[in-house]
Amino acid sequence: MLKPWIEAQARLVEVAAGRAFADLVLRGGVWVNVHTRETIAGIDIAVADGRIAYVGPDAASSIGPNTQVIEAAGRFMVPGLIDAHMHVESGMLTPAGFAGAVIPHGTTTIFHDPHEIANVLGLEGVRLMRDESLLQPISMFTQMPSCAPSAPGLETTGSPISEGEVAQAMGWDGIIGLGEMMNFPGVAAGDPQMLGEIAATRASGKTVGGHYASPDLGRPFHAYVAGGAADDHETTNEEQGIARVRQGMGCMMRLGSAWYDVETQITAITEKGLDPRFFILCTDDSHSGTLVHDGHMNRVVRHAIDCGCDPLIAIQMATINAASHFGVERELGSITPGRRADVILTSDLRALPIEAVIAQGQLVAENGQLLVDCPRIEWPESARNSVHLGKQLAGPDFAVRASGDSARVRVIGVVENQAPTRALEAELPIRDGVIEGQGEVCQIALVERHRGTGGVVNGFVSGFGYQGRVAVASTVAHDSHHMIVVGTDRDTMAAAANHLGQVGGGVTVFRDGAELATVALPIAGLMSDLPATEVAEAAQAIVQAMLDCGCSLNNAYMQHSLLALVVIPELRISDLGIVDVRSFELVDLIV
Amino acid sequence: MLKPWIEAQARLVEVAAGRAFADLVLRGGVWVNVHTRETIAGIDIAVADGRIAYVGPDAASSIGPNTQVIEAAGRFMVPGLIDAHMHVESGMLTPAGFAGAVIPHGTTTIFHDPHEIANVLGLEGVRLMRDESLLQPISMFTQMPSCAPSAPGLETTGSPISEGEVAQAMGWDGIIGLGEMMNFPGVAAGDPQMLGEIAATRASGKTVGGHYASPDLGRPFHAYVAGGAADDHETTNEEQGIARVRQGMGCMMRLGSAWYDVETQITAITEKGLDPRFFILCTDDSHSGTLVHDGHMNRVVRHAIDCGCDPLIAIQMATINAASHFGVERELGSITPGRRADVILTSDLRALPIEAVIAQGQLVAENGQLLVDCPRIEWPESARNSVHLGKQLAGPDFAVRASGDSARVRVIGVVENQAPTRALEAELPIRDGVIEGQGEVCQIALVERHRGTGGVVNGFVSGFGYQGRVAVASTVAHDSHHMIVVGTDRDTMAAAANHLGQVGGGVTVFRDGAELATVALPIAGLMSDLPATEVAEAAQAIVQAMLDCGCSLNNAYMQHSLLALVVIPELRISDLGIVDVRSFELVDLIV
Repeated sequence: MLKPWIEAQARLVEVAAGRAFADLVLRGGVWVNVHTRETIAGIDIAVADGRIAYVGPDAASSIGPNTQVIEAAGRFMVPGLIDAHMHVESGMLTPAGFAGAVIPHGTTTIFHDPHEIANVLGLEGVRLMRDESLLQPISMFTQMPSCAPSAPGLETTGSPISEGEVAQAMGWDGIIGLGEMMNFPGVAAGDPQMLGEIAATRASGKTVGGHYASPDLGRPFHAYVAGGAADDHETTNEEQGIARVRQGMGCMMRLGSAWYDVETQITAITEKGLDPRFFILCTDDSHSGTLVHDGHMNRVVRHAIDCGCDPLIAIQMATINAASHFGVERELGSITPGRRADVILTSDLRALPIEAVIAQGQLVAENGQLLVDCPRIEWPESARNSVHLGKQLAGPDFAVRASGDSARVRVIGVVENQAPTRALEAELPIRDGVIEGQGEVCQIALVERHRGTGGVVNGFVSGFGYQGRVAVASTVAHDSHHMIVVGTDRDTMAAAANHLGQVGGGVTVFRDGAELATVALPIAGLMSDLPATEVAEAAQAIVQAMLDCGCSLNNAYMQHSLLALVVIPELRISDLGIVDVRSFELVDLIV
Repeated sequence: MLKPWIEAQARLVEVAAGRAFADLVLRGGVWVNVHTRETIAGIDIAVADGRIAYVGPDAASSIGPNTQVIEAAGRFMVPGLIDAHMHVESGMLTPAGFAGAVIPHGTTTIFHDPHEIANVLGLEGVRLMRDESLLQPISMFTQMPSCAPSAPGLETTGSPISEGEVAQAMGWDGIIGLGEMMNFPGVAAGDPQMLGEIAATRASGKTVGGHYASPDLGRPFHAYVAGGAADDHETTNEEQGIARVRQGMGCMMRLGSAWYDVETQITAITEKGLDPRFFILCTDDSHSGTLVHDGHMNRVVRHAIDCGCDPLIAIQMATINAASHFGVERELGSITPGRRADVILTSDLRALPIEAVIAQGQLVAENGQLLVDCPRIEWPESARNSVHLGKQLAGPDFAVRASGDSARVRVIGVVENQAPTRALEAELPIRDGVIEGQGEVCQIALVERHRGTGGVVNGFVSGFGYQGRVAVASTVAHDSHHMIVVGTDRDTMAAAANHLGQVGGGVTVFRDGAELATVALPIAGLMSDLPATEVAEAAQAIVQAMLDCGCSLNNAYMQHSLLALVVIPELRISDLGIVDVRSFELVDLIV
């Protein structure tokens, strides 16, 4: 484990002075200096106790018999990359699995908000994520989730987060601040719990993550800013990004698996020439497949460079800018004395091949290969057994009963490549007193899974294009993460739901009563304890199975998992019923 | 008193939302935005509880019957200026007097290190300075002095500062960090007290001021950096400045009354094009005359602009860069919501006339006139009666006795326009068993004044050029601030010294046994409680009196007050004897 700087100080002085040997010396590299924004050739780095002791022209005298020497030989020595805001759970991995996947890509620091598990297990889930984060060979800081449930009164989570719990968590090691304050209407309206959570965070000297997902830059925006959020990653164009920075916030530009918000905002720097120091890169959400095939923050930095950004500025946006934002600039984020020795070796600052990764003074990856263990905690039974269906489900649980020959019902209309849905209506036939989907319209159900109430909310959805007797079920069901089941056949829906109940959660595709593919996510129904490559493979099998069942949407699985997200318009489903998110109210299924 | 942000939060939201009236609205100005580094015209600012609630196109709806409205009318609205490192005592003023002098110049935040009073009164002196600082209408943060005495073993202060006291002070309100760690050889050598003071500061999350006054950029420099200092203001050329920033430190470029270190370093930005964010402006030491006649941080910013710096970058270096450095970027340093409402109005960003100054939401100065009270504390008897001579001094106390006709003695050689002295020798005549000065060589004495020991250390000095029977005495005598008396006549020296004993300290010039001029500095023998204009006038009278006595040195008084500064070569005087600062040892006066 890394010693606090205070305990390393004396040895760092001795090594820097040349009176003691270093643990590690990097020789003859090109120093990418993110403080001055320049490169300096012919530099040695001496490391002691996981921290940088010396950066200068000659560390030869710091090399003793037990000093590891790495020849940097004209390669660039870049500070380890930082993901300034993200959710580990999006990779369907625990912190250990995530770390293992991203270390070879040069990520050495992550600020993550375990918002998903907080919806399942409450504060205890946050603590577990924090615990595993602190075991990793890289720096993983946890943001305390601020909004669970995301939409109080419209959904029920496993265990709601209170203002008091936020204040309590601020005293924990490894908690760096408050996770994205997404209740922006609440903040702007002066909601006491939301303001209280922010105040508790500020009182502890920590950073308040923001989330203002509205194009309105009028008074509600100003009120949200006054409430105290320090950053925002929900901006999607230059005007919005600049507006945040002008108001004193950090603008976190994200390139996630499904977020493409760098190209549209980086013109603030590349064209407008604004000071880049408060612009920061992040991923927000990365799927395992992205991590395995495309990379992580190296992908984001490369992309920023491809968008015309000076490579040194792009690197600053993924290193020191993030570190400064979270108040840890003297702890990490640059290759300078006292900081954690997080260094990438690369021979090209634009293509950014990650040839070696040093984290906290340890060579953790080389040429894409992870060289270290990423320890896991023993996840307790409460986390491993989080799918409580309360009963064995059967076809009739998914029946919507009505009288007559047909009924006019609300239909959640999935829109290709967009998170918002449309509030549609359809006239559906009634057979044997049960409303039946037809054509593009099939059934959707929200199965309560936190308290074992046996509750099932039924509705209708269109846009997936399923053919035959199909069901897709998922316990990843933002944000309260019950179970969403979409299907064309009620018995198959029951079989898929029961299967997830047996494996402890995950995503599964059933056809004709039989399993086509499953990603088991036994930890909180959100995360696997397999490595990222296996999870990515299983997730790919899900995509293929959905395609085989007739669904040709891009990101079909993501569309599925967002259908209960009762904060994004227009129509959603929750454990409490059908929700019209335009008016934030529960509505009847039958019109 | 300004409320903490937490207590203001709810009202800031209400005002920003347009649901409550502001206390103050500035209308129609040009927003100097130091986050994006741009100017934006047509902006209103709404202020509540001393903090900025709203910055945007229209605050009309925030104007109620009790809202003060200031028309900015196309003028620039610049964040209040920050002095990132300085010593209040250098102005011979207390914090209140200093604040009163600099507010009309647009300074709204000061980070000051009460190193001088710490040498006289120890921790209690620091507390008193902190107490008065916290009463001011501007933000005055106190740095805990790190090195009192500056040269342990070579001088005796009134009350030495311990590592435990540093740790204790870090828990006080208003203490922002550690004052300049000037014992750079100690840090580089791993001195436990010095490392301990730094560690205690870092443990409290605060900022460690640095002071590495050596051109050596080799291993001692690297060892000093590894010790943990976060900044340095002792750099005097571009190479040194860049070296600090590359190593992760802030480079504080100073323009003081006698420091001219901006022009020689700002080329790092204006010519080398380095990232300016870690370059910061400060004054370090400003005399009252400078404050009265030339300005304060506005003078520094103007000077930086005159040196070719972009005005917006120069302003950043005196605002947000300093705020970020000290970890208070969310509290002040920019005109953005939540921050203290510190705003200057000026119609020209280059000439920077300070037309109005708003501090913490209050109009504190207009057109050079101070509009508010700067409250003083009741300075206790211990501070007001700090000159303890132990006895009435007489001519014979200044006699250097020897036998024979002449003696070869060491002479402190004052060098025009330089702080270092030269270690000279002279053959002086002996009359009646007493060595007499002659020609350019006159007497110097260090009179102990902290413990009333009656101790007088005598020596010889050259370079002042005094004619006739003259004596100049000062209780400003860096760094341990005993009393330095320089004179050509022992009875006159005694008269001058006794006079300072009577008035509680200060600076005085005597000729032929009579007073020519005096600046009384009754607080700790360092500070006046008169306004800056009167202090400046009295100080000018001292300069004139020294000139009248034959001394034509530039900064003659400063040269005088530095003669006991036993950390700068070559020869100095202390309460313990004559000090050779090349070897850091006490030496005999007679060779």
